[in-house]
Amino acid sequence: MSPRVKEILSWYGSDNPGTLANLARLLNHGKLSGTGRLVILPVDQGFEHGPARSFAVNPPAYDPHYHFQLAIDAGCNAYAAPLGFIEAAAREFAGEIPLILKINNHDVLLDEKDPLPALTSGVEDALRLGCAAIGFTIYPGSAHRVGMYEQLRQAAELAKRNGLAVVVWSYPRGSSLSKEGETAVDVCGYAAQIAAQLGAHVIKVKLPSAHLEQEAARKVYQKEKVPIATLAERVRHIVQCAFNGRRILIFSGGAAEADEKVFDEVKAIRAGGGFGSIIGRNSFQRKREQALEFLGKIIAIYGQS
Amino acid sequence: MSPRVKEILSWYGSDNPGTLANLARLLNHGKLSGTGRLVILPVDQGFEHGPARSFAVNPPAYDPHYHFQLAIDAGCNAYAAPLGFIEAAAREFAGEIPLILKINNHDVLLDEKDPLPALTSGVEDALRLGCAAIGFTIYPGSAHRVGMYEQLRQAAELAKRNGLAVVVWSYPRGSSLSKEGETAVDVCGYAAQIAAQLGAHVIKVKLPSAHLEQEAARKVYQKEKVPIATLAERVRHIVQCAFNGRRILIFSGGAAEADEKVFDEVKAIRAGGGFGSIIGRNSFQRKREQALEFLGKIIAIYGQS
Amino acid sequence: MSPRVKEILSWYGSDNPGTLANLARLLNHGKLSGTGRLVILPVDQGFEHGPARSFAVNPPAYDPHYHFQLAIDAGCNAYAAPLGFIEAAAREFAGEIPLILKINNHDVLLDEKDPLPALTSGVEDALRLGCAAIGFTIYPGSAHRVGMYEQLRQAAELAKRNGLAVVVWSYPRGSSLSKEGETAVDVCGYAAQIAAQLGAHVIKVKLPSAHLEQEAARKVYQKEKVPIATLAERVRHIVQCAFNGRRILIFSGGAAEADEKVFDEVKAIRAGGGFGSIIGRNSFQRKREQALEFLGKIIAIYGQS
Amino acid sequence: MSPRVKEILSWYGSDNPGTLANLARLLNHGKLSGTGRLVILPVDQGFEHGPARSFAVNPPAYDPHYHFQLAIDAGCNAYAAPLGFIEAAAREFAGEIPLILKINNHDVLLDEKDPLPALTSGVEDALRLGCAAIGFTIYPGSAHRVGMYEQLRQAAELAKRNGLAVVVWSYPRGSSLSKEGETAVDVCGYAAQIAAQLGAHVIKVKLPSAHLEQEAARKVYQKEKVPIATLAERVRHIVQCAFNGRRILIFSGGAAEADEKVFDEVKAIRAGGGFGSIIGRNSFQRKREQALEFLGKIIAIYGQS
Amino acid sequence: MSPRVKEILSWYGSDNPGTLANLARLLNHGKLSGTGRLVILPVDQGFEHGPARSFAVNPPAYDPHYHFQLAIDAGCNAYAAPLGFIEAAAREFAGEIPLILKINNHDVLLDEKDPLPALTSGVEDALRLGCAAIGFTIYPGSAHRVGMYEQLRQAAELAKRNGLAVVVWSYPRGSSLSKEGETAVDVCGYAAQIAAQLGAHVIKVKLPSAHLEQEAARKVYQKEKVPIATLAERVRHIVQCAFNGRRILIFSGGAAEADEKVFDEVKAIRAGGGFGSIIGRNSFQRKREQALEFLGKIIAIYGQS
Repeated sequence: MSPRVKEILSWYGSDNPGTLANLARLLNHGKLSGTGRLVILPVDQGFEHGPARSFAVNPPAYDPHYHFQLAIDAGCNAYAAPLGFIEAAAREFAGEIPLILKINNHDVLLDEKDPLPALTSGVEDALRLGCAAIGFTIYPGSAHRVGMYEQLRQAAELAKRNGLAVVVWSYPRGSSLSKEGETAVDVCGYAAQIAAQLGAHVIKVKLPSAHLEQEAARKVYQKEKVPIATLAERVRHIVQCAFNGRRILIFSGGAAEADEKVFDEVKAIRAGGGFGSIIGRNSFQRKREQALEFLGKIIAIYGQS
Repeated sequence: MSPRVKEILSWYGSDNPGTLANLARLLNHGKLSGTGRLVILPVDQGFEHGPARSFAVNPPAYDPHYHFQLAIDAGCNAYAAPLGFIEAAAREFAGEIPLILKINNHDVLLDEKDPLPALTSGVEDALRLGCAAIGFTIYPGSAHRVGMYEQLRQAAELAKRNGLAVVVWSYPRGSSLSKEGETAVDVCGYAAQIAAQLGAHVIKVKLPSAHLEQEAARKVYQKEKVPIATLAERVRHIVQCAFNGRRILIFSGGAAEADEKVFDEVKAIRAGGGFGSIIGRNSFQRKREQALEFLGKIIAIYGQS
Repeated sequence: MSPRVKEILSWYGSDNPGTLANLARLLNHGKLSGTGRLVILPVDQGFEHGPARSFAVNPPAYDPHYHFQLAIDAGCNAYAAPLGFIEAAAREFAGEIPLILKINNHDVLLDEKDPLPALTSGVEDALRLGCAAIGFTIYPGSAHRVGMYEQLRQAAELAKRNGLAVVVWSYPRGSSLSKEGETAVDVCGYAAQIAAQLGAHVIKVKLPSAHLEQEAARKVYQKEKVPIATLAERVRHIVQCAFNGRRILIFSGGAAEADEKVFDEVKAIRAGGGFGSIIGRNSFQRKREQALEFLGKIIAIYGQS
Repeated sequence: MSPRVKEILSWYGSDNPGTLANLARLLNHGKLSGTGRLVILPVDQGFEHGPARSFAVNPPAYDPHYHFQLAIDAGCNAYAAPLGFIEAAAREFAGEIPLILKINNHDVLLDEKDPLPALTSGVEDALRLGCAAIGFTIYPGSAHRVGMYEQLRQAAELAKRNGLAVVVWSYPRGSSLSKEGETAVDVCGYAAQIAAQLGAHVIKVKLPSAHLEQEAARKVYQKEKVPIATLAERVRHIVQCAFNGRRILIFSGGAAEADEKVFDEVKAIRAGGGFGSIIGRNSFQRKREQALEFLGKIIAIYGQS
Repeated sequence: MSPRVKEILSWYGSDNPGTLANLARLLNHGKLSGTGRLVILPVDQGFEHGPARSFAVNPPAYDPHYHFQLAIDAGCNAYAAPLGFIEAAAREFAGEIPLILKINNHDVLLDEKDPLPALTSGVEDALRLGCAAIGFTIYPGSAHRVGMYEQLRQAAELAKRNGLAVVVWSYPRGSSLSKEGETAVDVCGYAAQIAAQLGAHVIKVKLPSAHLEQEAARKVYQKEKVPIATLAERVRHIVQCAFNGRRILIFSGGAAEADEKVFDEVKAIRAGGGFGSIIGRNSFQRKREQALEFLGKIIAIYGQS
């Protein structure tokens, strides 16, 4: 166990040894093992956006086995997916990579300003499928957020009792927020705080812009001169919002973008003290060899000591 | 156990031997036994459309015994129906044909843009009645879909723990979808994906048209030149959307149509790699002898090696 | 056990001996014992319409003991009432007549187009009070019907597990139905089918008129020339809709009417193959001696071999 | 045990000895012990109207001990209050007076046409606090009444299983009722019937006016010439509506009024066969000595043989 | 055990020794130990207002360890926070200060007139984390208050059964109240009463203004000449509203204000018989040394004998 992993585990003093062991599994798998950094492959876009929008560009990705192999071969720390994708390959790849079962999901077949995801699997499924953690998305700002928080609370309590880790995707959305506001630095920091207060072990947020959404927050940022000019500064601020760095905070890779832009973002995350990235579409929406190369470069950036 | 059935069972590595045995029962019953193809007789129209609309054209079909006998004599793989129809004949036909208990249902005595079915029976009923599987309808696109997904999740978890298989009817409908969109190929593929991600063992969708409903999806289909011109191509695409063929995917026969049209559709399903058909109204809404002949021809098409 | 009762019991092959014994109790009590016909006294109007509207015309009927005695003395098969009325006399009349505990109820102190009844007692109450069956009202067509069906499902499952019978009042009502449509023959048949599919052992519907409410149904009735001209024909059709006669189907007596009209209706029910009547207001809203005479005549009609 | 109390207990033949013992406790405590009459002190106005509106006129009444002592010293049959008031003195006064735990409550900090009370305590609390009964308010006529009835059903079932008595406050209110209609004699009788059918042992209603609210009821009252001209007649009618006198029916004292008016009302209740009064504001909103004198006079009226 | 603490504990005669021991822990910790006064440090603003608005002014406060240490060093009676903040330091500070787990929370990412908090943790969490009490916020006046009261009831029952104390924040808000009305003395007293009736051991309200919000209450205050001119008088009135002083009632410090104003308020609380203060933003939103000095002064005022 590396000193850095020991240090990270020390932040979770309220968890039982089972949960600590699973957090250690996430931190000690793949090419970033022991560094305290994580690169996770998430594949829930089939449910969230539809299969053709997700996989038509790289048809082997329709196959659930593809992603397990990609995550393993790329040296990711973990693979995260909904129930069906996990069930379809968990036996074949048992023990080869830590799994995060994404227990709620949302589709886009209905227009709605305030998203409401469905609980699509649970802690019992995660246990029987050999997962290290459950994953859960909350949409702070949605009119339905109270139901989400309460579902998360129940699942998290059960997960912790059974020695699993809890990974929370915290994505602000809803009728009171502007589109720009969903990634505003104040809103992003608020989303990280909410996930942390709800008891998440690992928190995933979007990369924050310099926009300030809420009037009451803007005044404080300006009065206190919170440094948010560069992406690295904003990452540092979000890390601060997640218990001053005492919670593992990772960032989503977003939609497919120019590679160099992604690498710059990863460098900013690293510079700002972020713990890693969760890279979905940017990896599985390119050919396997290119994806391996792309993920390899990202991992190499994080792996620089 | 035929090699093809063994192969199909191998896709369900996360299920217990009880569920595998019930999947094997579905695959190894009737004239298509061992081929990996299925023709299932479903009779829930009495609840879904009303009894006269369903059975007046062939009055013996008012009798629940009629359908058990029809499914057996036609050599179907299984018979699917709601609680009442199963209860009314399960003892008389015990062990003669695999049963799928349709545990939710919807009637048309209320106009509603966003359908909301009711849970009308459950896993306990399926077990006491000797069923091989539960059946559940979801309406992706309905404003009530979250409740359906969560009901399915609970029933599916219980079913799997008790060694039953889970068959999901995935029928997109709701206020955000056009009538044409309900069978659009993008929407149909999305519906298959959702059912698969929710943990279905067998998925039933409608035959897809070449229409593309969602703007964001249309762009991808066109850019990636996804082949959807012929029905066989569209079937192949939907199979792909159901975990690249790793889930049993069957198609509904729809309303009564000209026989040749149905046979052409079945040939397209077969050509496209679909696993079979679920034929309700087209079979029980004709005289028994004609139904047997009609189902016999469909089964013969699927049975061609 | 008469051959006819044996035949009727044979239709319930999925039920346990406890439930069969209670169905037999209903069929083997009173003057119609063994005939396979039933006349049941239901008294829930105190809750459904209010006490004065129900009992002022015959004040002894305010007393819960009155109805037990009336049902016993008239030779009815069973007595059905809500919790309070049953509790108030169950010890005094224990074992004297089969009881049906009406476990949901609806009052008229609130105007509502889509009725929503309340669960007012349960299977545990039925067991402790020595009842043979639970009774449950559904309102197909109500916007709240899904909740009702799901409450019925839960109660019916528990009742069957505990050896009770399940009697369902199926009364179409709601914002999508016209007043005339509530007793339309297509709607009535649909209501009988829904109750049967939900697992009812005994189904109670209103007497159908020749009106056809739903456009899609009307076409079928006309095309298939379903005979619905006379009341006896319509009764026969509703019996058909209840699993072709494999479920006990009885008809409500409705509001107070001229006696001869009621007797004619009873003859039509008998001619059409209906299993009996449930006569509330028409019996307890007249003096006891007249009620006994009136019920006696109805029972005599049903008792003709 | 007096013959009258024995007679009253005989009406509750479906209850277990535990519940009978608690009903006997209510009937055999205080100055009216053994008479079959009850005067109960209820103090929930602190929650229902606010503390200052309830107690400022007599500040010692802010203290929860005050009411226990008042009820004991006045010779009431029982004391009824919400959780907090009971918890705050139950140990000090254990065994000194039968307690009724009011398990739901409603405040007036929100304007609403259709009141919705909250479940604020439960049967478990009543048991641990040594109460003889639970108290529950329903608002027949409220759009939320179904939820109330179902909460009552659950609490009443549990209470009866655990040997407690059930006291129901039945107060018609809601958007379909006029203000005058809330105490109309037809509505009041309906409210008593609903409480009785829901399984209440003791029912509390407001004193009925001669107003008739519901058109369908008015016709019956007029046609059948139901005597409702005097208050005693109306009381007699409401007693009739509560199972013809087979349920303990008491009346609320209402807001503070001239003493003579209250005494006249009590005489009418007595003359009409009512079982007693529940007197809150009229007693604790005057000085203790005056309250004792006032309650003494009421009890004396009821105590006349 | 000081005589004053013994006296306070004597008010909770319905609680088990476990709960009394935890109340004693709250009363016997810190500089005010044994005095019967409390100063509590609450830090839930990270969730309620967002992290930057809460902590940017004093960045060490982003760290969950900071607040434990501050509460300990200042000599507070207890520290209250949501799940995440408690989990992040409970092991490190185990046994050093009584903890109150704030089990529901509300964020401001959605505009809403009627606030609806989410249950974010529970009694099981409080027990595993070694807390002395749960904390719960209710918003009397909110259209969602019934759900809150029922969640509180369930949590409080479980907490009391397991020997925990229950602290209720009672903050009137909602569409029927004016902004000024939220701290009106009548509304404030009502809020204290509701919390007390719901079974709270410790009640926290805002400092009341002399405004009277509800018309029906205003009449009583004026008629009865309830003294509410000075803050001390108003505090005394609120104490009266909380069972005449038989419940521990503390006041919130509100937003950052001039120190002398706060000290004057504390003196008024003390003069009016209030039990203490819960001081959040006014303490952690200044530098640590200043916060210690500030809290020291407040504690000193309360500590004067």
